[in-house]
Amino acid sequence: MSGKTTIIDSISALRGQVAQWRKQDLRVGFVPTMGFLHQGHLSLIHKAKAHTDRVIVSIFVNPTQFAPGEDLDCYPRDLEGDHEKVQQAGGDVIFFPSVEDMYPKDAQTFVEVKEVTKPLCGSSRPIHFRGVATIVTKLFNIVTPDLAVFGKKDFQQLVTIQRMVADLHMDIEILGGDIIREEDGLALSSRNVYLSPEERTQANCLNRALRLVRQQFASGNIDSIELVSAAKKLIQEQPLGQLDYAELRDANTLLQVGSEEVNRTAIGTDRLFLAVHFGKTRLIDNAPLEGPCSLDTIE
Amino acid sequence: MSGKTTIIDSISALRGQVAQWRKQDLRVGFVPTMGFLHQGHLSLIHKAKAHTDRVIVSIFVNPTQFAPGEDLDCYPRDLEGDHEKVQQAGGDVIFFPSVEDMYPKDAQTFVEVKEVTKPLCGSSRPIHFRGVATIVTKLFNIVTPDLAVFGKKDFQQLVTIQRMVADLHMDIEILGGDIIREEDGLALSSRNVYLSPEERTQANCLNRALRLVRQQFASGNIDSIELVSAAKKLIQEQPLGQLDYAELRDANTLLQVGSEEVNRTAIGTDRLFLAVHFGKTRLIDNAPLEGPCSLDTIE
Repeated sequence: MSGKTTIIDSISALRGQVAQWRKQDLRVGFVPTMGFLHQGHLSLIHKAKAHTDRVIVSIFVNPTQFAPGEDLDCYPRDLEGDHEKVQQAGGDVIFFPSVEDMYPKDAQTFVEVKEVTKPLCGSSRPIHFRGVATIVTKLFNIVTPDLAVFGKKDFQQLVTIQRMVADLHMDIEILGGDIIREEDGLALSSRNVYLSPEERTQANCLNRALRLVRQQFASGNIDSIELVSAAKKLIQEQPLGQLDYAELRDANTLLQVGSEEVNRTAIGTDRLFLAVHFGKTRLIDNAPLEGPCSLDTIE
Repeated sequence: MSGKTTIIDSISALRGQVAQWRKQDLRVGFVPTMGFLHQGHLSLIHKAKAHTDRVIVSIFVNPTQFAPGEDLDCYPRDLEGDHEKVQQAGGDVIFFPSVEDMYPKDAQTFVEVKEVTKPLCGSSRPIHFRGVATIVTKLFNIVTPDLAVFGKKDFQQLVTIQRMVADLHMDIEILGGDIIREEDGLALSSRNVYLSPEERTQANCLNRALRLVRQQFASGNIDSIELVSAAKKLIQEQPLGQLDYAELRDANTLLQVGSEEVNRTAIGTDRLFLAVHFGKTRLIDNAPLEGPCSLDTIE
């Protein structure tokens, strides 16, 4: 049985709780989320719990990472359901601050990570990662965790945070959590609820494209343009899917390895990144060309 | 008698020292500098010492706050002399990291404070405050001080850091230290060594302009354009001085109060900001229109 999960909405109360744990020499883990939690989030909580003594889960739909016209206003929310799930996953505290507290009047400070945020999702969402880096810095400064866990589905976000933590000398260990999937391979996402039944059926094309490319690489195809083309072809066969990007990139620098313009010999640690629109819903997924990954992990 | 001041050049050793002090429940004060210390810096150390149990002084000439063509390469340095001064002022540790340690390979993360860094020095030094905010964030994350002291001579820097700390929820108290001056009123600066004897003689025009404007305000002149003009006129009478800016601004927001274009009734908390070139040397100074300030403080 897990203990009771407390909801804390004030910054000073959260600082007080952490200070109390520190006095007991307890290690603090942190899982920042936007709420509407699914098994993917819960697996991050389990991972944080396995490495620390106390786990704080933040729920904050961060306005500065949404551009005008994106789904900020209709982003799904369910604090009551989230509370139950965090409790079951063994999280000790939900930090649920207000927008007014997180963004003081006249707030004008931003954290920007430059190179790794330019391609992929940064290209179609130009202010997104600045918003992410800024809110994560604020949360880190409030929570002061020893360790934080970010899901690998937003792999570019994970790389951005790792880069930021190293560059700014934040004394926090960053772990990546495996992607959790539904039975047909679709990566769990709070945004999957937007999909129509027909879109939902076709949405597993991202998973199938990742599998296909891994198979081709395993069979000896190391031509990065060919590998990317195979992924694009599979996705473009879905009538309801609209490809945003399919790119092969170095997993650390996110520099491009394969595209129409770039072609170097693919290596196993390179990662294929996919983004596909289904109606108004944008789905992302990624996997390395080789080695362990979570394409088969299901809820 | 003060204790011995230790020089620490490694980040991990510095963290270890601070962790040891924390275990003894000691409060840690911090004075970030670029070295070549003068009485102005030492007064900041005294101020930090008065509010905390241990004081760390960093000496780091930060490359990212200098633009190409500025005086990075010839910025004056004197670690041995600085060590002696910090020791006499009662500083416990000098943190003296390398550029390579402060800026890891591929570093690409910047902290930007937007509005307050645009006018004044930000206008003639466009990347300066981004470099300052970034290095101070790094240093704060390493030193994790309870309190930090910044001099009021770089008043825009002080406002920038206060804004950044509030916006990013850094749990650090920021204090401003009074400007310390030479006998004729010139504000102490590491860059004063660049001045020729003739330039040095005329360099006290900044102080005289500040005094003049305060006198005019005290005599009932609340016309912001007239006050600014009086300062400009006095400075432009110096044959070797080249005015960069003379502006009256709100002390918190740094919004403009007086210029050729802007005119609102001046109030006592408004601040006059001056920057004047003498040859290659750029001098700055500032004072509120009313109330206590350090125009008469001499070394």
